This record gives sequence, structure tokens and C-alpha cells, in this order.
Amino acid sequence: MRWVVDGLPYPVVIAADAAPEIASILPAGSAAIVVCDRRVETRAAVIVDALRQAGVEVRDVIRIDAGERKKNHKTVNGLYRELLRAGAQRSTTIVALGGGTLTDIAGFVAATYMRGLAWIAVPTTVLAMVDAAIGGKTGIDLPEGKNLVGAIWEPTAVIADLIALESLPLAQRRAGLAEVIKAAIIADPALLETVYRLKLRAAGPQAWGAIIAAAAGVKTQIVGIDPREQGVRATLNLGHTTAHAVEWASRYAVGHGPALAMGLRVEGMLARDITGWGLAEHTQVLHTLHKAGLPLMLPALELSDLLQAMRHDKKRTDAELNFVLPVRLGEVRSGVRIDEGIVAAALQACQAAPVEGGW
Amino acid sequence: MRWVVDGLPYPVVIAADAAPEIASILPAGSAAIVVCDRRVETRAAVIVDALRQAGVEVRDVIRIDAGERKKNHKTVNGLYRELLRAGAQRSTTIVALGGGTLTDIAGFVAATYMRGLAWIAVPTTVLAMVDAAIGGKTGIDLPEGKNLVGAIWEPTAVIADLIALESLPLAQRRAGLAEVIKAAIIADPALLETVYRLKLRAAGPQAWGAIIAAAAGVKTQIVGIDPREQGVRATLNLGHTTAHAVEWASRYAVGHGPALAMGLRVEGMLARDITGWGLAEHTQVLHTLHKAGLPLMLPALELSDLLQAMRHDKKRTDAELNFVLPVRLGEVRSGVRIDEGIVAAALQACQAAPVEGGW
Repeated sequence: MRWVVDGLPYPVVIAADAAPEIASILPAGSAAIVVCDRRVETRAAVIVDALRQAGVEVRDVIRIDAGERKKNHKTVNGLYRELLRAGAQRSTTIVALGGGTLTDIAGFVAATYMRGLAWIAVPTTVLAMVDAAIGGKTGIDLPEGKNLVGAIWEPTAVIADLIALESLPLAQRRAGLAEVIKAAIIADPALLETVYRLKLRAAGPQAWGAIIAAAAGVKTQIVGIDPREQGVRATLNLGHTTAHAVEWASRYAVGHGPALAMGLRVEGMLARDITGWGLAEHTQVLHTLHKAGLPLMLPALELSDLLQAMRHDKKRTDAELNFVLPVRLGEVRSGVRIDEGIVAAALQACQAAPVEGGW
Repeated sequence: MRWVVDGLPYPVVIAADAAPEIASILPAGSAAIVVCDRRVETRAAVIVDALRQAGVEVRDVIRIDAGERKKNHKTVNGLYRELLRAGAQRSTTIVALGGGTLTDIAGFVAATYMRGLAWIAVPTTVLAMVDAAIGGKTGIDLPEGKNLVGAIWEPTAVIADLIALESLPLAQRRAGLAEVIKAAIIADPALLETVYRLKLRAAGPQAWGAIIAAAAGVKTQIVGIDPREQGVRATLNLGHTTAHAVEWASRYAVGHGPALAMGLRVEGMLARDITGWGLAEHTQVLHTLHKAGLPLMLPALELSDLLQAMRHDKKRTDAELNFVLPVRLGEVRSGVRIDEGIVAAALQACQAAPVEGGW
């Protein structure tokens, strides 16, 4: 069972078992170091055994505590030292195994250790499989905001490991569906229906593989056209202006998936008045998010914190804010500037009531 | 007075006055932030005035203490925060003004702040003009060694500012000649003669400009062929295996220029037995280094520290070491593996006596 997702100059594979896929990419005798999230170290050990049997010289397995609160320069600096200790050289490949924060961190370290090593992204969460691990964006946070430091550094391959999903907590599988729903709104309306019909507790690798491959395909097609985000790639930020603000203002107590669900609601509300985004479509999105068990109501965060985090230019306080808004299912518009007051009203509405219109 | 150096996809200009050159690259209305070494802040202020008069929105001038001991993640992290405070956005250009450590640091920050900003390198030392600021290598040190973290991030332009040389201490102008002599050995034998004849105290911008343009040209030609150091670019590391070890083992008490002079001697000695590098040429190089006022005798550093620093693979202690060696004036050979014992003997010889054969 494997899905090969087209659109990028490197292979993106959704695999039942990532081990043989990784082994087929690394030539026998080549040197690799595995960097994994501590939460998947058991799975990492199995993969390392398979790589060693295939003749890959796995020099070390470096386990780190990933997570948004660890996505900082301290973790990166510690990782550089660990790599040195493990004997990492320019010819060593980093195999990054974990969720989105792990692939962001390890990918950034790969981009900058000795001015750049090859790396393979092995996402083990739905969020990372459909979004974070694809497209070469790597990086860390600053106290002032998410992903403010980073590099675009393309991996040799992205190999999603469906076995890892079996031990992923249900809440994290739900979280991943937020990015799937986002992809569906941007370019694949049929996928929205598929997600709505998904039996979340019963879904096995076959169902997940198909959904993940579809959502990943939306991303690879867009990134393939605009790898450095000079145009259309920005559309992938649908829901994210709000989501990043909620994550940051909550000090990452709200995870990316739930924050994105809230973001899709807030930005859908804004779109209703600005792009003419239909009520039927907006309601369908809200129903699908709700069915996936994702939250729609914003927690009681300070409005001024949320707005501050949404400003691109941290120096200005009078600015309009920049959004990607849905136009209709399968079409979004980026670079929409909206007055802060209008945004504040939408945020407050989503803090005050669980859904619009009381459905 | 200006020299335009060919070979790279971006302009490399040795200018009497960098200000109008920078202004001609930045469109009126564009936003820039100047990052400068505190030692050139007076010069930076003049350049900023000129840029503002040309309509460039200079948002801030960030002064830092550069130098090899400051080339670390603390300085970089501080700079990220300063850039945020100054309102740096993706569309902002970083103008990096200073010596090689400043352009390394500011270039790395440009490479990684918001996943990459445009930057202009404005080297103000001979070392940076002929080497460090050209070719896109940016980065910082780790406690374990030099330049272990970094990125290859090409600037929009390199604009050397000859006015800045007027206030550069004589010792630092001497230091720069070590890189000029290295370039001469690699690909421009006539330049060795020019350096030998240079009247160091009397030399003005015309003499310096010509020498710097020639040495910079050696670098641009080689980097233009192999920007990511997959082949011929490695030849530019002539003298550097030893130089970096001396710098590191001395905790940067020995600067890059003097360390490179020592490295050219040590590696020339090694080459005598291995590549057949001629005694006449070796002696000519030593005389030129000596005439430039550069040291040839290694300080009494621990041999084990020097050898440790020379190892690419920090895990192995039995390895041969990797060198670029001169073959004849204008020709070098990279990837020469030499037994540690032979290297140790050469280092000891250069610690014991000021020059070979007692010339």
C-alpha cells in the first residue's frame, strides 16, 4: 500500500511502512543520523533496524522533545552539538521522524549544519503528512511569533509512515483533519465530503492513506508552482493568520489543528462580507470541522494580543491585516487587507458563540 | 574609481565610495536595515545619509560587536530580535557593513530571518573584500569549531567600500594580504609579485583597489563554476585546514590573516614532499608573506588541539587529514589525505623555527 504524490521535484510518498521506502533512497554504505521525537522512539528503533539491515550506516538516533514550545534556538543549538558528537559530516543524511515541529526543527538543522545536509522527512502525524513536512519550509519560533526564523530547504524525499498513525492519539488525528479540510477548501471540494463521511475511530491505513494523499496532493501541486512563496503558495495560509495568532496568544496551549479550525471559522466569517463566500459552503465547512471533533469557539484570549500577532509589520499598530479568504469551495483569494476593527469584531463573535446562526 | 569583478550572477564591485553603488541597487522607496560592526559606525552613518537622500527607507541601523568570538548563536538571536523591533519584513533588504565576521553573521541572519531576506554585502576590510563577503557562504561558529553552522545565501550584490580601508588599522590591512597571497598561489602568479612590491604604508585606494579586484576575481571565477562547493570551490581552502585549527586552538587570539599565513607555510611544507611544490616557489611565498608583515612561526599551541580541529569527522581519531596543497604557482590540488603523524611533524617544525632552511 503506497500513494505517490506528484508535483514536486522530489518524491512524496504515503507509505504503509516507511522503512523500506527510506532504505530504497539511501544507498547501502551511506551514512545517516536519525533525529526523532521522543514520542515515536519505538517506531524509530524499528526503522533504524531496517535501515541497518539494508546496509545504511546509521551513526546515531537523537531523540528530542519536540512540540511548539521546544521549537526554538536552544533546541536547535543542542541538536548541532549532538550531531557533531555523532560525527555528522556534509555527506551525512538526516532522517527526521516525527510531527510538524520535529520536521521543522530537524529540517532547519539540516539546512544550516555545515551549511546544509541532505534530509529525509518522515512525518508521523496527519498534520505533518499533509502539510508541515511537505514543501521545504523549515524553522523555529521566536518569542515574538511562530516560524520567524527558518529556511526553505527541500528534503530528498518525504515518506509518510502510516504505521505511526496507529499509535497517534485520537485528538492528534482529529487535529490533522483541520489541514485536510483547509486543503479541500483551497482546491479539492470532493475531499470535504470524504472527510465528513470518515469514521474517525474505525479508519485504518487504507482510509487515512487516501485522505492524506489527496490533501498532500493539493499542497504539492501549489508548492511545485511556487516553491519560494512569491505568489500562489500564499493561498496555503488560509486560516493561518488567525490560527498562528491563537497559538501564540495562548502560549501554544491551543495546538495547531484546533487553532486552524477556529481560523477557518473566523476567516470564513470575514469572507462572507468580503468575497461573497456562500452561507451554504461556510456551514458545510463548520459542520465538517465539528464532525471531526474540532473546536469552533475561540478561547477567551486578549483581543489586543491576537491582533498584535496578526500584524506582519510588528512596528505598525494602525495597519490593516492580511488574509487569505475563501471565495467558493475550490477557490481562495490571498492578499486581502482588512481593517483591524472588522477583524476584532469577527474574533469577538467567535469568542462569544459556538457557531453562527445557532445551527 | 571602480572595479567590476566578473564571474558571479550578482555584481561584485570594488568602489572608491560604496554609497552611490548601494543606492543604485536599492530602488527609491524600498526598505532597508543596516547592520554594521560598531567599528565602522561612523562610515555607516555617512552611507545611511546617502541612502536616505536617494529615497531609500532606512528603517534602522543596528550596531553589533562583531569579531570571531561574537560569531555565535547569541549574537544571531539578538539580531533577530532587533530586526523584529525595527520592523523588518520579507521585503526588507539587509545592508551588512563590516569585516568578514560581520558579513558572515548578518548574511546568516538574512538567510534565516523569515526564511530569507535579500542582503547586500558591504565589506570594509581587505579580508572581507577579497574573500569572506564573496560567494554567499554565511554562518557562525560552534564551540567545537569555526563555521559549523551556516547557509549558502547569495547577496544581491557585493560592494567593497575603499573609503573604509583608510581607517582600517595597518595590522588588519596586512592580514588581508594573506588571502590575496592565497588567491595568487591558486590562480594568479603575477599577483604574488604585485603584493611583494606593494608599499603597504603608502598604498592608497588605487593600489588597493587593483589588488583587491585581482584577488576577488580569483574567488568569483571559482565560485561561479561551483557555488555549492561540490568540486573546484574546495581549492579556495588552501591554507585553511591549518589556519582554522590555529584560530580555534588559540581561542581566536590569532586572527584569520596571521593564521592563514602560518597555514600557507605549513601546507607548503607538506606539499614539498607530496606534490613536488618547488623550493623556489615555497620560498617566494614565504618572502611575500614576511614582507607583508605576516607571521610564519606557529605559536606554542597544543599539538593535540590542532590535530583535533583539523579532523572533519570529529568522532574519529585515527583519520588522515584533508588538505588542499599547492602544486606550482597557479595550480593547487584538493582532497589530499595526509597521515596525522606527518602533519604533526610539519606543525612542530613551524613551531620550532621561524623559517625553513634559515634564509
